[in-house]
Amino acid sequence: MASSADGFHALDEKALLEYIKATPALAKQLGNQFEGLQIKEVGDGNLNFVFIVISQSGSLVIKQAIPYVRCIGESWPMAKERAYFESKTLIEHGRLSPDHVPEVYHFDRAMCLIGMRYIEPPHIILRKGLIAGTEYPLLAEHISDYMAKTLYFTSLLYLTTTDHKRAVAEYCGNVELCRLTEQVIFSDPYKLSKYNRCTTPYLDADAEAVRKDDILKLEVAELKSKFCQNTQALIHGDLHTGSVMVTQNSTQVIDPEFSFYGPMGFDIGAYIGNLILAYFAQDGHATSENDRKAYKSWILRTLEETWKLFHQKFTALWDEHKDGPGEAYLPEIYNTAELQLLVQRKYMEDLFHDSLGFGAAKMIRRIVGVAHVEDFESISEAEKRANCERQALNFAKTLLKERRKFKSIDEVISAIQQVQS
Amino acid sequence: MASSADGFHALDEKALLEYIKATPALAKQLGNQFEGLQIKEVGDGNLNFVFIVISQSGSLVIKQAIPYVRCIGESWPMAKERAYFESKTLIEHGRLSPDHVPEVYHFDRAMCLIGMRYIEPPHIILRKGLIAGTEYPLLAEHISDYMAKTLYFTSLLYLTTTDHKRAVAEYCGNVELCRLTEQVIFSDPYKLSKYNRCTTPYLDADAEAVRKDDILKLEVAELKSKFCQNTQALIHGDLHTGSVMVTQNSTQVIDPEFSFYGPMGFDIGAYIGNLILAYFAQDGHATSENDRKAYKSWILRTLEETWKLFHQKFTALWDEHKDGPGEAYLPEIYNTAELQLLVQRKYMEDLFHDSLGFGAAKMIRRIVGVAHVEDFESISEAEKRANCERQALNFAKTLLKERRKFKSIDEVISAIQQVQS
Repeated sequence: MASSADGFHALDEKALLEYIKATPALAKQLGNQFEGLQIKEVGDGNLNFVFIVISQSGSLVIKQAIPYVRCIGESWPMAKERAYFESKTLIEHGRLSPDHVPEVYHFDRAMCLIGMRYIEPPHIILRKGLIAGTEYPLLAEHISDYMAKTLYFTSLLYLTTTDHKRAVAEYCGNVELCRLTEQVIFSDPYKLSKYNRCTTPYLDADAEAVRKDDILKLEVAELKSKFCQNTQALIHGDLHTGSVMVTQNSTQVIDPEFSFYGPMGFDIGAYIGNLILAYFAQDGHATSENDRKAYKSWILRTLEETWKLFHQKFTALWDEHKDGPGEAYLPEIYNTAELQLLVQRKYMEDLFHDSLGFGAAKMIRRIVGVAHVEDFESISEAEKRANCERQALNFAKTLLKERRKFKSIDEVISAIQQVQS
Repeated sequence: MASSADGFHALDEKALLEYIKATPALAKQLGNQFEGLQIKEVGDGNLNFVFIVISQSGSLVIKQAIPYVRCIGESWPMAKERAYFESKTLIEHGRLSPDHVPEVYHFDRAMCLIGMRYIEPPHIILRKGLIAGTEYPLLAEHISDYMAKTLYFTSLLYLTTTDHKRAVAEYCGNVELCRLTEQVIFSDPYKLSKYNRCTTPYLDADAEAVRKDDILKLEVAELKSKFCQNTQALIHGDLHTGSVMVTQNSTQVIDPEFSFYGPMGFDIGAYIGNLILAYFAQDGHATSENDRKAYKSWILRTLEETWKLFHQKFTALWDEHKDGPGEAYLPEIYNTAELQLLVQRKYMEDLFHDSLGFGAAKMIRRIVGVAHVEDFESISEAEKRANCERQALNFAKTLLKERRKFKSIDEVISAIQQVQS
């Protein structure tokens, strides 16, 4: 396979085997056993190639970025340098939350190739578990832990201005991925775009209503500005339920190639927005044996716990490190327990509203934008699917426009329940 | 004079002459005439050395940054690389608003030295003109022009995300100057600091009240976060009335060494906050011949015109370039005159409130922080000075805490007038 001038070439299974043999950090993970090695390409995402490699004495995953959007084709070029930022964030978030981020064994910048831990079965993508109706009792605990640690420790609550600006500057390099997000989340759903689709003809009028909703577009502009301008923390950038792998005991966050210094609410919102999508999809998965009512309650409980545990862990980190290096709230200024509580309450309230806004925007784009979710796509009967999607869309529109009126996650959950009462 | 390893050495008059002779871009401005050359060091600011150089056939200014805060001494180190950012911003802002920014002839990165236009007499520093009670009929027109163009064209209203992030990343390098601002504006005034001072004993209790005002400290935290995290536009970063030179016909903005990608309201606020300080200082300059009442009215009129003209020019640029490269508000989405008006109204309202908040913070720090203003300092009688300062301080506290309640600049002006009614 010919190599380009910059040292990059896309690997197939055969070339990959040679690559692994020549790379001690990878060969070691396989116990240097190459006989009967199994290599399987499993990339089902929108962008990359992913190979699972299993030997008799070990395993690993190889992820390689290619210079275009895989699900669209070479007509939509995309910086393969995203692999650098993915690797960097896996390492940084892994340092902060080692239990929930796979270990990186090797990174090759020229080849845009990451070698990392194979997250073995029975781990599955959380979205698939939610479609199957499987409960994960530790999920809220784990994901809140991941979010609290990765967001707190990369914000100005913990970092000095010097360290923060240095990191912000470097991640500005991941601009192409930011632009992709801007387009597919904050722009395309609100205008005619050849990439948009929806469950036609049922949702055609709903999609048109989104494009004509001035208040919605006004609010989306504010969220887009925050996404483009607010360098609050090192966010994952694509934290939906397809970026999380789970078992009953383990939760692993993968695929941070969209990561950059952006608003924390974008991560929290991506996650809770996709949980709410899963909720509204349940009626489409109900059967005569299982009406999914109990599972819907579990999803709402998980939603509630996720925010509450996040809030608790994030403010606990803040309290614990209030005399630390962070320069946002100097202890000499915020010097009483009462004032500390006051500033935290304000900060968390703003973060809550950001999270609801971004979450709603992520829901909308999954129904009328380019990339849909399997939660709905797997409902084969179009009219039934459309009904589920319409409920989710209408709730998301209300959530986005009225987000500042919600005082607690309990109020959000009540509003969700009222949609179907 | 010994040169340091990085090629930097601080120049005195004699060394400067040799430097100019050896630098064609500078020698040319003097018509290559060095006989009877006058060199005068005039840096009265807090940070740098500034030399005025005049020959029989030309003139220029040499500004050299030194690696510490000049007004404090070597005990407060300060990145001399600020000269790079100052030069870069003079060139960029000069390109956008050539009538109001001095031309750069030469920049020497190793020497941290800028050669630029000498802004000749009768230009004086605006602050001195305001103290003297001089009216400048074109000032609001000029400064609004400078602010509208420099802020609009460096924001995402005009820039692509790609160009914006590239510039944001580079200006992250000016972090030490950002940290200085964070300290002296957003931190020190709200805690005990050896650098703070006030007109003692008259204002001791007022300074203490600032340190104990929880709501004020809560609001200042929000402004500080915006300053540290919101990369809205390439701001001057220190746009007070000491950074503006004026005649009846000319307005020149100098000294953008604090420039970086930050919130627009920080520039607008710096300017209007210092106008308001000038207003409250007038009673201290009143004499039996001149009660300064007419001049106070002129300041308020100028304040009103500055915001109104800025608003008009900024939104006119937005309308003119709405089909331009900017990606914040795509014309296919914001596609009706009504919606365009709606988003502009929201944007300008947020910017107005930011400006009031930052303006108030800039006022407060000039009364109870490290660096005071000549407007008050030149009032020799301490008690009279303290009375003027207290009025300004109390107004600033209200403005900062209640800024979101002000719907227009007229309401701000009414509030100022009520302080002394």
